[in-house]
Amino acid sequence: MTGEARPKVLVTGATGYVGRAAVRHLRALGCTVHALGRHDPGDGIAWHRTDLLADGDLVGAVADIDAQVCLHLAWSVPPGRFWTHPDNLDWVGASLRLFRAFVAAGGRRVVGVGSCAEYAWDVPLLREEMPLRPDTLYGRAKAALADLLFAFAQQEGVEAAWARLFFLYGPGEPEGKLVSDAASILLRGGRVATTPGEQSRDFLHVDDVGRALALLSCTSMTGPVNIASGQAVRVREVLERIERLTDTEGRVDYGQRSLAAGEPMKLVGDVSRLRDEVGFRPHFSLEAGLRDTVDHWRQRLQDRVS
Amino acid sequence: MTGEARPKVLVTGATGYVGRAAVRHLRALGCTVHALGRHDPGDGIAWHRTDLLADGDLVGAVADIDAQVCLHLAWSVPPGRFWTHPDNLDWVGASLRLFRAFVAAGGRRVVGVGSCAEYAWDVPLLREEMPLRPDTLYGRAKAALADLLFAFAQQEGVEAAWARLFFLYGPGEPEGKLVSDAASILLRGGRVATTPGEQSRDFLHVDDVGRALALLSCTSMTGPVNIASGQAVRVREVLERIERLTDTEGRVDYGQRSLAAGEPMKLVGDVSRLRDEVGFRPHFSLEAGLRDTVDHWRQRLQDRVS
Repeated sequence: MTGEARPKVLVTGATGYVGRAAVRHLRALGCTVHALGRHDPGDGIAWHRTDLLADGDLVGAVADIDAQVCLHLAWSVPPGRFWTHPDNLDWVGASLRLFRAFVAAGGRRVVGVGSCAEYAWDVPLLREEMPLRPDTLYGRAKAALADLLFAFAQQEGVEAAWARLFFLYGPGEPEGKLVSDAASILLRGGRVATTPGEQSRDFLHVDDVGRALALLSCTSMTGPVNIASGQAVRVREVLERIERLTDTEGRVDYGQRSLAAGEPMKLVGDVSRLRDEVGFRPHFSLEAGLRDTVDHWRQRLQDRVS
Repeated sequence: MTGEARPKVLVTGATGYVGRAAVRHLRALGCTVHALGRHDPGDGIAWHRTDLLADGDLVGAVADIDAQVCLHLAWSVPPGRFWTHPDNLDWVGASLRLFRAFVAAGGRRVVGVGSCAEYAWDVPLLREEMPLRPDTLYGRAKAALADLLFAFAQQEGVEAAWARLFFLYGPGEPEGKLVSDAASILLRGGRVATTPGEQSRDFLHVDDVGRALALLSCTSMTGPVNIASGQAVRVREVLERIERLTDTEGRVDYGQRSLAAGEPMKLVGDVSRLRDEVGFRPHFSLEAGLRDTVDHWRQRLQDRVS
């Protein structure tokens, strides 16, 4: 952020999967973190208790924090109902309230968090300047919120960046996701029934995602930016690596399911802006990131047994 | 609306400039009107007191009303700060809460109200299917809300229509608008300093706007629809008619101001959908509509004097 190398950062969703990684890296960069939300992030982080979906004294809480940057990660929807749940609409309203309160309190920079689901998925390489055509209520809600944030920020003379997250994996991932489910099932001796796995996706370890968001919070880059690896990796390659890392070769049954309608063969994020304007490059290779995730699950399963 | 010729209609903004006309025509069509908002609409209309911007028991109120159709007109922003006020963001949130509550209560059709300010103004003839590119926070808020309404309604299997209002005039118009200001100033013996007046706009009398919205509420048309006359009329022609109607020829000084940046020379709404799918044609000619407005102001000024 212009003239403020180590800003005070208000973080929502600080206790979530991505939030924990972002907070860790914000502190590593020397930022002061103030968490705003329902749960105490612990670790000596200043916590301002608020339910963003309720209409408490958000304006007062945000003014008390008096941060220069707002990194808004909170967006909790009941598990498994992510794409379609009406709570997505409530989060648009809650996010707009937060942005307004933050700008009214003198905040200088807002970093919002969206998704590759904002794009049309009919081209493989997704660039920030492409027209958006989200297919789901979730994607539409994120895209609409981003548009309103940009309009509001431009009018009020504050900075706004919008991080479009791609496919995440790593320790702490909620259940129901590819890498974590495969690792935990294989480590427990189960079998995984899946698609032929020929579709390619852009995977980024959650720790790298958190670091990218922390860097983005401390730059003055505005507009949308893909948070991605820039590498298209076949799902089959990911699963074969997990099989090897868990010593369970042959226990993934490819082709047992077909790819869902609307799932394209290839999706990858263009990372020019992330690399050139945010200065981010991933630390984790795919192999190292998967090893880290498998180690996490191995540890968790041992803890459960012992 | 499918299978329900005279539905029960929940109306927000029922006491506003457009709302009063819409309610009058809904009742004329045989609909039962329930007003939801801060002000009592009077006239024997069922009133459910709620501040839509506050977080009261909206869900309960909407469920109590149990209407088939929701005509959502409320959107109040401090006078003169319409285009830029942050309250526009709050109205997005409030509208989404309303739509969600209405659908949860079993509502079947939502009619939202937007504006020609949702379009890019670089072509003269504005058609519903054109890509939107609003220049103002107000226009962006309306366009984003419409997009979320369509996504939500499609997912939930309810009907959603979105009325894009053009340039309104008529009795009861808030101050600061062309026709009312000209009529009231000229009738009081003042002079009007204005642009050369060569720009054309699409004017529709508020009573016709209200009737179009009432008809739209009772059809099953979905998607966006322009509420307009389909006629481009030069501003100078409008003012000259008002001069004649008020017997004040020569008291409008054209060319004293220049057209504001971003004001195009011509804007007119394509009315194919309104005519063919809603079945609406204006009742008021421009001359009759202006006469009605001038009569209204003459009466008001007499009331003031006497």
